[in-house]
Amino acid sequence: MQQIPTGSLVLREARPGGTVVELPGCVEVGGRAFVVMAGPCAVENAAQIEEAADAVAAAGCPVLRGGAFKPRTSPYSFQGLGEQGVRLLLAAASRRGLAAVTEVMDPAELPALEGVALLQVGARNMQNFALLKALSRLQRPVLLKRAASATVEEWLLAAEYLLAGGNAQVILCERGIRTFETATRNTLDLSAVVLAKQRTHLPVIVDPSHAAGRRDLVAGLSLAAAAAGADGLLVEVHPRPAEALCDGSQALLPPDLRELMRRLLPVLHGVGRELWRAPAQRMVAR
Amino acid sequence: MQQIPTGSLVLREARPGGTVVELPGCVEVGGRAFVVMAGPCAVENAAQIEEAADAVAAAGCPVLRGGAFKPRTSPYSFQGLGEQGVRLLLAAASRRGLAAVTEVMDPAELPALEGVALLQVGARNMQNFALLKALSRLQRPVLLKRAASATVEEWLLAAEYLLAGGNAQVILCERGIRTFETATRNTLDLSAVVLAKQRTHLPVIVDPSHAAGRRDLVAGLSLAAAAAGADGLLVEVHPRPAEALCDGSQALLPPDLRELMRRLLPVLHGVGRELWRAPAQRMVAR
Amino acid sequence: MQQIPTGSLVLREARPGGTVVELPGCVEVGGRAFVVMAGPCAVENAAQIEEAADAVAAAGCPVLRGGAFKPRTSPYSFQGLGEQGVRLLLAAASRRGLAAVTEVMDPAELPALEGVALLQVGARNMQNFALLKALSRLQRPVLLKRAASATVEEWLLAAEYLLAGGNAQVILCERGIRTFETATRNTLDLSAVVLAKQRTHLPVIVDPSHAAGRRDLVAGLSLAAAAAGADGLLVEVHPRPAEALCDGSQALLPPDLRELMRRLLPVLHGVGRELWRAPAQRMVAR
Amino acid sequence: MQQIPTGSLVLREARPGGTVVELPGCVEVGGRAFVVMAGPCAVENAAQIEEAADAVAAAGCPVLRGGAFKPRTSPYSFQGLGEQGVRLLLAAASRRGLAAVTEVMDPAELPALEGVALLQVGARNMQNFALLKALSRLQRPVLLKRAASATVEEWLLAAEYLLAGGNAQVILCERGIRTFETATRNTLDLSAVVLAKQRTHLPVIVDPSHAAGRRDLVAGLSLAAAAAGADGLLVEVHPRPAEALCDGSQALLPPDLRELMRRLLPVLHGVGRELWRAPAQRMVAR
Repeated sequence: MQQIPTGSLVLREARPGGTVVELPGCVEVGGRAFVVMAGPCAVENAAQIEEAADAVAAAGCPVLRGGAFKPRTSPYSFQGLGEQGVRLLLAAASRRGLAAVTEVMDPAELPALEGVALLQVGARNMQNFALLKALSRLQRPVLLKRAASATVEEWLLAAEYLLAGGNAQVILCERGIRTFETATRNTLDLSAVVLAKQRTHLPVIVDPSHAAGRRDLVAGLSLAAAAAGADGLLVEVHPRPAEALCDGSQALLPPDLRELMRRLLPVLHGVGRELWRAPAQRMVAR
Repeated sequence: MQQIPTGSLVLREARPGGTVVELPGCVEVGGRAFVVMAGPCAVENAAQIEEAADAVAAAGCPVLRGGAFKPRTSPYSFQGLGEQGVRLLLAAASRRGLAAVTEVMDPAELPALEGVALLQVGARNMQNFALLKALSRLQRPVLLKRAASATVEEWLLAAEYLLAGGNAQVILCERGIRTFETATRNTLDLSAVVLAKQRTHLPVIVDPSHAAGRRDLVAGLSLAAAAAGADGLLVEVHPRPAEALCDGSQALLPPDLRELMRRLLPVLHGVGRELWRAPAQRMVAR
Repeated sequence: MQQIPTGSLVLREARPGGTVVELPGCVEVGGRAFVVMAGPCAVENAAQIEEAADAVAAAGCPVLRGGAFKPRTSPYSFQGLGEQGVRLLLAAASRRGLAAVTEVMDPAELPALEGVALLQVGARNMQNFALLKALSRLQRPVLLKRAASATVEEWLLAAEYLLAGGNAQVILCERGIRTFETATRNTLDLSAVVLAKQRTHLPVIVDPSHAAGRRDLVAGLSLAAAAAGADGLLVEVHPRPAEALCDGSQALLPPDLRELMRRLLPVLHGVGRELWRAPAQRMVAR
Repeated sequence: MQQIPTGSLVLREARPGGTVVELPGCVEVGGRAFVVMAGPCAVENAAQIEEAADAVAAAGCPVLRGGAFKPRTSPYSFQGLGEQGVRLLLAAASRRGLAAVTEVMDPAELPALEGVALLQVGARNMQNFALLKALSRLQRPVLLKRAASATVEEWLLAAEYLLAGGNAQVILCERGIRTFETATRNTLDLSAVVLAKQRTHLPVIVDPSHAAGRRDLVAGLSLAAAAAGADGLLVEVHPRPAEALCDGSQALLPPDLRELMRRLLPVLHGVGRELWRAPAQRMVAR
């Protein structure tokens, strides 16, 4: 197995106190507060993303997710709205004081992604080194998803590409690995979260939606992630999952998201953390 | 994938309220209280198991584990003390009012296992159907570990062998699956726990020690298991792990176990559960 | 990873020239001739096994397979005809001068398995150490299948249990490992065959039927196994796969088996081997 | 699992006779002749690639491989000589009448890759859709490696991106998948080769070097690939593997390559194929 070289920038030793990544709009990831990022898999149209943003804001989540440039296994699947999707996402987010996270697949898309608070590198691109090198030259926060077949060491070394190039604003995201189990889309690897929190100073969040691929497991896995020491979640919610153009079966309904936020609070309290809330409604876990 | 036939005894529909397995000594697994079973991988000698039992009792765990008939990958590894190991385990447990759990590999060992509260079927024997059929004819609690490469459906169908044969006192145990990741011994699959709790009425516990294979991940994974809805833990503790004849690198030290119990309490409270404590010291999570 | 201890009986160094396992009826496995064992997954009734045996003998294969004690994932699946199945298998085999191979799941079945030339330990029982120890005390040939999630090292260590107990008549069988790929039932691991032939002196055969789980891949994989250096095949054939009680989708039809034997000949010749044929019809590859 | 839509360009039905990809210099991949592409993992300097090219030409292989833009897990590993590496590779190849294959990681590298006969998309970039779309607009042959965790269906859908964009000159390459087995770097999946040859009309070759990660398995796996129906090999050879900057442990030595070519001949003959040889020395398998 490839080992992380001693002295690597990504290692905990390089920054024992941990890194806090600050998103525009004052959301801090990696601090005491647990940050829930939520939204649909893809931005489909204005009405859908507005409705989803309502749900996200109402639940108290500070970050809106939504894909505009979509990596799809088949060239015949919906490929995202592209630049227009980014504009719809940013409009929906800014109207509600939310930060926005969306995926970047190609450095050529960066001009269209101005205003996006957090640039996501998807699991399929974790070792797209041309993309990593381009992002390493920016001073913008990057969310680096673990590839479905990457070891923890490989994931951290991909992050090292970003740090070595000069961009220290990196958040890691565990989203399930590929195993023999077919009851779930992927297998959520919370050991990797516990381990990554020890090995690196970077914040680590969890995407339970892509891991499970089914709505009914998302709440349980989210609570487990919080207890395991994750710094936040990236979770899918859709106003009408049955009509979703992408991954509807794993999207929560708006009431599910509110219920999840309600249930996260005491678990986070149990591990000495709080839940990040939009300023107006921010509550410290009691 | 093999599907569980409709009408199977193992399915949640057969017993919507859930099954509580009662171990001799009044420990209930599958109820509101979370049961921590702890002890060394193997019973090595009287002094070791007595010392381990002290640690287990002192931490407030109601069940002592310890292997006597050991399945080992190599024929040249320590194979366990066999019948003598069972006697030492039972002596150490009963002196402290603990129930005992140990592995059975062969129906021929059953006479030697009289007095054991919970008979463990190890991961390697999950589909040893001759053994399952023999245990199905007993009226004794069985702990059925998931094989390292079994799907959740296959695991539940293995349990169905026990129920179909007449033994309904079955506890399931997730202990990590085999994946490409080499940083951990196995990959703990908490999705399987969330899923199994929905699919079946049987209690489900988690073995974080064999999953991780390394002590430093055990506490984090234990808290995650509690938050995910598991009904208990099977965790390794050894008075001097460096001298252990088996799996020392994954064993907690006695103070680690006490600390784990302390940390479990608020997380369990966060999901509406309590921690099972030996009668004298039993505390409801507040 | 568990390493095979230096000096282990299973290692090539212990017997550089290789082991030839002789089955009753003078079939040698591990020599220059490649041995094809064929037959149905399960013995279903007299007519079926007789018809299958006709196909096997007509194709020139010297060994008839057929399960009598069947390990099935579900307790509600056909569990095999047991002792009666063994009798039907032996009758069909002996009438045609074939050796017989069938699975043993439990030492208690051994009396019923008298007359069976080759006792198969199935993949699920590769680490059923009680069974291995019982078989190690016999002087009868054993076919040890690799478990679906066993490393090559673990497989060889399971064989070491047999050799260490005194039984050196062991044939290994690779039958596919469990991976993420769903297009095949398992993933045939021919690297393991090449590697095992280097690491150990024991003969190694391949079961392409369980590996693929689908008839249309069996011939291609069989040729590949022959080229990779395997010593033989264990392949499923059924007179009417659509009516099979078990694994029909992976069974060849009788004409497929003849065609496979015809195609094996020149490939074996290409790697300096010949095809084992029943005495009457034995042909050296030309 | 993602299914290939009916009517997809990649499916066998679209071109039942199969596709032959012609490389500049008249090498045809996908026809009756089996094409061996060989060379070092990376171009290191002029002397090394010249020496390697000598070995490749002397063995009769028509295509020289050598990486110039290298995807490396760690940013601190040798990243390849880039544009200069391409020049050295092309010089070494053209001097000997060989075609050249090298990896492209980023469309921005395409100008530097003029003259390269076959553009390789590495396993890590199999689902780098921006790269696939850029390559789909070229009329140049592309070698598409299967990702270490891609199903066969996903691999074919990645090829569909190329065909749907207008580039039909696609060769597939199986190079091992990621599994639990640690004795090999990856697990060569020859079932995928047999299956892909049925599902698609595109040529399929095999990289036994990255699959095995160790020299001693390469010959056996190469013979198996030929017998399984592959259309060629991509194999690593290095004049002094112990000094290689990249993957030396899996590189053949020049005499190994000659020996491999010698052994391939009769196996290919056994399956009705011949071995592609440089015009001067081209031999039909006899």
